[in-house]
Amino acid sequence: MLDASTLWPFVRDLRERAPLVQCITNFVAMDMTANVLLAAGASPAMVHATEEAADFVELGGTLSINIGTLSPGWLGGMEAATIAAKRRGTPWVLDPVAVGATRYRDEAVARLLPQTPTVIRGNASEIMAMAGRRDVAAKGVDSTQTSPAARTNAIELARRLGCTVAVTGSIDIVTDGARVVSLANGHPMMTKVTAMGCSLSALVAAFLAVTRDPLLAAASAIGYFGVCGELAAEAAEGPASLRLRMIDRLYTLDCTTFADRLKVVE
Amino acid sequence: MLDASTLWPFVRDLRERAPLVQCITNFVAMDMTANVLLAAGASPAMVHATEEAADFVELGGTLSINIGTLSPGWLGGMEAATIAAKRRGTPWVLDPVAVGATRYRDEAVARLLPQTPTVIRGNASEIMAMAGRRDVAAKGVDSTQTSPAARTNAIELARRLGCTVAVTGSIDIVTDGARVVSLANGHPMMTKVTAMGCSLSALVAAFLAVTRDPLLAAASAIGYFGVCGELAAEAAEGPASLRLRMIDRLYTLDCTTFADRLKVVE
Amino acid sequence: MLDASTLWPFVRDLRERAPLVQCITNFVAMDMTANVLLAAGASPAMVHATEEAADFVELGGTLSINIGTLSPGWLGGMEAATIAAKRRGTPWVLDPVAVGATRYRDEAVARLLPQTPTVIRGNASEIMAMAGRRDVAAKGVDSTQTSPAARTNAIELARRLGCTVAVTGSIDIVTDGARVVSLANGHPMMTKVTAMGCSLSALVAAFLAVTRDPLLAAASAIGYFGVCGELAAEAAEGPASLRLRMIDRLYTLDCTTFADRLKVVE
Repeated sequence: MLDASTLWPFVRDLRERAPLVQCITNFVAMDMTANVLLAAGASPAMVHATEEAADFVELGGTLSINIGTLSPGWLGGMEAATIAAKRRGTPWVLDPVAVGATRYRDEAVARLLPQTPTVIRGNASEIMAMAGRRDVAAKGVDSTQTSPAARTNAIELARRLGCTVAVTGSIDIVTDGARVVSLANGHPMMTKVTAMGCSLSALVAAFLAVTRDPLLAAASAIGYFGVCGELAAEAAEGPASLRLRMIDRLYTLDCTTFADRLKVVE
Repeated sequence: MLDASTLWPFVRDLRERAPLVQCITNFVAMDMTANVLLAAGASPAMVHATEEAADFVELGGTLSINIGTLSPGWLGGMEAATIAAKRRGTPWVLDPVAVGATRYRDEAVARLLPQTPTVIRGNASEIMAMAGRRDVAAKGVDSTQTSPAARTNAIELARRLGCTVAVTGSIDIVTDGARVVSLANGHPMMTKVTAMGCSLSALVAAFLAVTRDPLLAAASAIGYFGVCGELAAEAAEGPASLRLRMIDRLYTLDCTTFADRLKVVE
Repeated sequence: MLDASTLWPFVRDLRERAPLVQCITNFVAMDMTANVLLAAGASPAMVHATEEAADFVELGGTLSINIGTLSPGWLGGMEAATIAAKRRGTPWVLDPVAVGATRYRDEAVARLLPQTPTVIRGNASEIMAMAGRRDVAAKGVDSTQTSPAARTNAIELARRLGCTVAVTGSIDIVTDGARVVSLANGHPMMTKVTAMGCSLSALVAAFLAVTRDPLLAAASAIGYFGVCGELAAEAAEGPASLRLRMIDRLYTLDCTTFADRLKVVE
């Protein structure tokens, strides 16, 4: 079973190497995502236009794609960037926000999947929708399902696409189709802060720059993010102070606290 | 006269029901708006593209439209969403940011008004511009007028359009053309934080999911927001800590404090 | 040598006059930029669409242009606004984010330069790229060079374009080609907060509304911003509390503290 001694070195490497992470993400999450990545030690760059998205991939960073606040111009940039990423072997993360909620989102995901994301991170409703379940409906961008309910779908999806799938919620499940890791950090108040999932997806992309194993990258990001989130929540007076304290914690978290808090349950 | 015993049940219901609120808003306000809605208990979704804005209305949320940082693609999405809202009977809020400042904004509002907003929320300059006053000019997005100066225009506008109009400022005036409610919560330092008015408009849309009376929805949102804002300002060291404390307060405010603080002056 | 007695009156005037500042900036920086400007006393307005960007310039504010998260529609608005600014004599600031990183960014800057920015503010890599140095490469949006390394290039650029150039970093250098001012406020943790440089550029535009001397405007903005940043960093537990405290400080900074802290080193 994974533990802090396996995952902490990636947190340390991220801080030391400050890898470039190109993000094509939604308007709500941009500020939070950039600040989360900076606090964690990465060097984020938001570059989305079709005119330059692929050129920017050539600079050698990893890539994070998030389809919240989607529109045709942005989808074009996402497609260009992911095609360049595939050709170049750049690891990339897909966050399929609210897939299943509208036909447009389903079609967008269908255009990106041929470029095979390294990691897909979503909530339970999103992962179930991507696995073809039409019997579950989300409430807008929020999940109506728990992560364990999506476990089988996540494994199937990982096998079918040949990628790693992370379902986050009160329990977080990461699988590459063969291995399954479950983590249990975090705090319910984190659902009252916008862009938590979105910035976590970008953080997975940052960890893909320091380990070649996507399962470990996703588990590191989720464990690190979850520990910081619960520490922040315990000291917070509400969602805004949670957010502030969490970003501060990403910057200051030490190995001992990480090891004390990390809950890998499987 | 309205009091806390009338308005508090809507605050409580919002927290319990967590209604979906679709927002097509400006780039500056997205993060703040999403966090305000989450802290208040709603489930916000920012979905604007013409390709899906109307489809998303069918999911059954209420709708908030804000014309800050406007451009043609976004206006198309706003038009599609409001047409769907009108057809479906979905309550929607219009925040006519900086209307009167450029011809483009006037034309944008003219395209949205046939879909009859349930509530219009603006500052005094915006409401006076919408009422056809060409003798007053705003300073960019900021009002140069006080709310009481816009009182008559607000009543006229509400009657002419058959909707509820809220003019916010140091005094907040809400009218459906027949009834008029005035509130006096808030704090001057709130004008030093961006997206305050914008997120309040979206909060009105959230309250439209828990009461069918638009006047009560607007008054609830304004009273709740104003009480939290003044409590936050009293403890703040500047605009950024005001913003943080206000979002925390939206999450933690209790009925007793609300009743102690609420100032309905008419 | 410049000192606080020269620069503080501009800070005071900014608070008193609350000048309108039109910003066409990137999605990541909008919230931070608006809040920085409001805390400093200005009246920001984010207005970018080609349909109205030039009309808005006619309202009489100063103008800040930032090419982060660039796309063709936005570049059109930037071009329209800067052409109107040039015709009208409106002072404007160019923040050439990540110029040199992609051809698209180089071409964008080439379209804006004929309108002669009043001030260009960038990090060392950006200013060196604008001066034609092809031997240095940035890491995405982050500089790989120190400001003193860009000193000669900044002076050359200022002379060639007939404008003021500010290179910011641990040392900040401002030059109009004849005079050179160096400042040394700030804190390393400021690089862990997104949109710091972007919001500083917009703050320079705000100061251009209170002094006709672009060198003094840039030096005032940089000194005021740097002093507030270092005071915030000293009390911060991480990057998010730095950001919060810095915005609060912009609102509350007094003349004595400014004079005690300001470090003009040349």
